[in-house]
Amino acid sequence: MQIPRPIAITIGDAAGIGPEIIAKAFEQEPQLMCGTFVAGDVQVVRRASAMVARTQARIALAVAALDAIGDVAAVPPQCIPVLQVAPVLGDLAWGQVNARAGAFAGHCLFWAANAALRGEIGALVTAPIHKEALHAAGAPFDRYPGHTEMLQAAAAEYLHKTVDEVPVRMMLANDELRVVLVSIHMALRQAIDAVTTESVFETLMITHDALSRHLGRVPRIAVAGLNPHAGEGGLFGHEEMQWIAPAIAQARAKGCQASGPFAPDTVFMRARRHASHPHPEFDAVVAMYHDQGLIPVKYLGVDKGVNVTLGLPMVRTSPDHGTAFDIAGLGKADPASLIEAVRVAKSMLIS
Amino acid sequence: MQIPRPIAITIGDAAGIGPEIIAKAFEQEPQLMCGTFVAGDVQVVRRASAMVARTQARIALAVAALDAIGDVAAVPPQCIPVLQVAPVLGDLAWGQVNARAGAFAGHCLFWAANAALRGEIGALVTAPIHKEALHAAGAPFDRYPGHTEMLQAAAAEYLHKTVDEVPVRMMLANDELRVVLVSIHMALRQAIDAVTTESVFETLMITHDALSRHLGRVPRIAVAGLNPHAGEGGLFGHEEMQWIAPAIAQARAKGCQASGPFAPDTVFMRARRHASHPHPEFDAVVAMYHDQGLIPVKYLGVDKGVNVTLGLPMVRTSPDHGTAFDIAGLGKADPASLIEAVRVAKSMLIS
Repeated sequence: MQIPRPIAITIGDAAGIGPEIIAKAFEQEPQLMCGTFVAGDVQVVRRASAMVARTQARIALAVAALDAIGDVAAVPPQCIPVLQVAPVLGDLAWGQVNARAGAFAGHCLFWAANAALRGEIGALVTAPIHKEALHAAGAPFDRYPGHTEMLQAAAAEYLHKTVDEVPVRMMLANDELRVVLVSIHMALRQAIDAVTTESVFETLMITHDALSRHLGRVPRIAVAGLNPHAGEGGLFGHEEMQWIAPAIAQARAKGCQASGPFAPDTVFMRARRHASHPHPEFDAVVAMYHDQGLIPVKYLGVDKGVNVTLGLPMVRTSPDHGTAFDIAGLGKADPASLIEAVRVAKSMLIS
Repeated sequence: MQIPRPIAITIGDAAGIGPEIIAKAFEQEPQLMCGTFVAGDVQVVRRASAMVARTQARIALAVAALDAIGDVAAVPPQCIPVLQVAPVLGDLAWGQVNARAGAFAGHCLFWAANAALRGEIGALVTAPIHKEALHAAGAPFDRYPGHTEMLQAAAAEYLHKTVDEVPVRMMLANDELRVVLVSIHMALRQAIDAVTTESVFETLMITHDALSRHLGRVPRIAVAGLNPHAGEGGLFGHEEMQWIAPAIAQARAKGCQASGPFAPDTVFMRARRHASHPHPEFDAVVAMYHDQGLIPVKYLGVDKGVNVTLGLPMVRTSPDHGTAFDIAGLGKADPASLIEAVRVAKSMLIS
C-alpha cells in the first residue's frame, strides 16, 4: 500500500487564532491529524500549545521540529510536527496587525504551494491570514488580496501560464452541501454582470473536473438560476435563457452531468444530504453569486464549513473563518472548521 | 371567556389540490381545525373528502353545509363545515385550467376578505389559486396577479383608500424563522433597484406593527444587507450606506427595534429558533429580495412554510405551495403547509 503524501497546514497569521486552532486540532483529533504537519514556526506553535494547555489546565502537547517533510511519519502521536519553512519569526503580540506576521504567512504559503506543485505534499490546508498584515508585509505579498490569488500565481508560474489561464472557483462544503460559486467578493450588481455563458461554463467544467477526481464518478451538478423561480420563463429576468441555459448545454456536450437552471429557493434543499433526506438529487450546486450559495451553507451554523479552492493543480482547503484577532491568545477559538478542512483535504488527497 | 371568531379557509382553485388538503387537514388535525370552516362549495369538498377516503381505504369525513358563519361552533368534530359563499360550482375535471373554477376561487376570496374586514371572521387562510384560471375567469378577476392584490383591493375599497395606501409585504414563516421580503416576484436586477430608503422603511414599519400585535411586545428585527458582507464598508456596493442604514435609522426613530444591515450569509443563522439555538438574537429578518429570504426558509424543506400577508387590516395566511395540478385528484397531496397556515393564523388571531 502506498503511503499518502503528507498534508501541510500553513500557519497563517501567527498573531491570530491559527496556531491555537492547529494545536487544538492535534489535541482533539490525533488520528485524523496523523500524516499532517505545520508549515510554520516552531516557537509560535510551542507558544500556542502552551497557551491552550494553560487555559485548559492540562499538559501541553509537545512540538517536534522536523528536518524534512519525510520525517512526518516518524513523529509520535500527541506531538505536533512543525517544519520551519521560513526564518524564525520571533516574539509577537496576539491580535495585532504585524508586517512580520504577514510576511511569514506569505512565505509559508508560497513554500507549501510549491511543495504541492512539485508533488512533495499531497494537499495544503491554510489557516487564516490577515489582509492588512499581508499588505503591510510589502512586496511581493502586498499585491495579493488573499490566499487564493497567491496560490493561483504560484500555479501559473509553475505551469508557465498566465494567471488567467489558471481559473479557480471557490467551493463551500459542509456535511450536507457542496456549493461552487460563479463569483465571490463583489457587489450584487456586478455579480449579475459576471453571470455570462463563459463564466458559468467555466465554473461547471472546473466543478466537473475536481469532483470527478474526488468522487471517482461523474458528479451530478445542479445549476441555480439567477432570478426568482429561475426567471419563470422570462417573466422575472432573461439571464437564465440568455446565459445560463446555453452554458449548461455546452458543458453537457463536454460530458458534464449538469442540469438546470433551477429555482434558487428550492435547489439547495434538493441537493441536501441528511438523515431525513438520504438520497439527494445532486452532488453539488453551482450558485450564481456569493450569498445565494453561502446562505444555505451557513444557515445551520458556521463552525463546520470548509472552503475548497477548485481549479488549481493541487488540493487546497481552508476553514471558513478569519484570524479572529479579537479572541486571539485567549484559548477560546473553535478548531471545528479547521478539523473539517483537514478531513476534506484527506478525502480529496491525490496520493 | 370570549370565543374567538371563526377562521375561513377559502377553497382556492377547486381543480387543484386545495379541496384535498383541506379534507386531510380536518382528518389529521380535528382539534386544530375546530373553529374553522371552508368558504367554498359543498359538493367540491364532499367529492374531495370521498376521494381522500377512497385512496386511503377508510370512511370519508362528513361535510356539514352551514347556513351562516355563526353555525360553525355547533358542527361536531370529524365533520367538515362548508359555507356555500358563491353559486354551486358543478362538475369539474381535476388538474385542468377552468374559468369557472377561477371565478369561483375569486368569489370565495372576496367574500372572505369582506367578512374579515367587517369583523365577521377572525382570519382567512387561503388555499392556492391558479393564475391562468383566474385570468380565464375574466373581469373583475383577470386584473389581479394573485391573492394578495385581491385582498389589497378589497381592503382599500373598504377603507376608502387607494391601493398604494395599503402597502403589504409577504412574510414567510416556519418553525425556525420569520422572514419579511422587501420585494417578491421581479428580476434580481429590478429587485436591487427596488431597495430604497422608502421601501425598506415601509417594510420595517409593516413588520414592526404586525409582529408587535402578534408577539405582544416590540419585535427585534434584523435587516439583511444587499451585498456580500453587507458591502464591507462600501467595498462591495454602496446600497447599505446609501439606502438601508438610513431606513433603519428612520424606523428606530419611530420606535422600531431594528438593527443592521448585517451580512446576509450569517444573519439568518443568528435569527434561527432551534433546540440547538434556543435564544435567537432576532424575532424576524427583513430580506432585500425574494431568494435571499426564501433560500433559508426553504432549505430544511418546503412542507411547513407558511405565507403571511402583513399590512392588511386582517389576518391572512396561506400554504407555501401552488395548486399542483399534476397530482390533483390522486390523494397524494401533503396538507402539512395548510395545517401550519391554520396554526399560524390561530396564533395571530384578532379576537
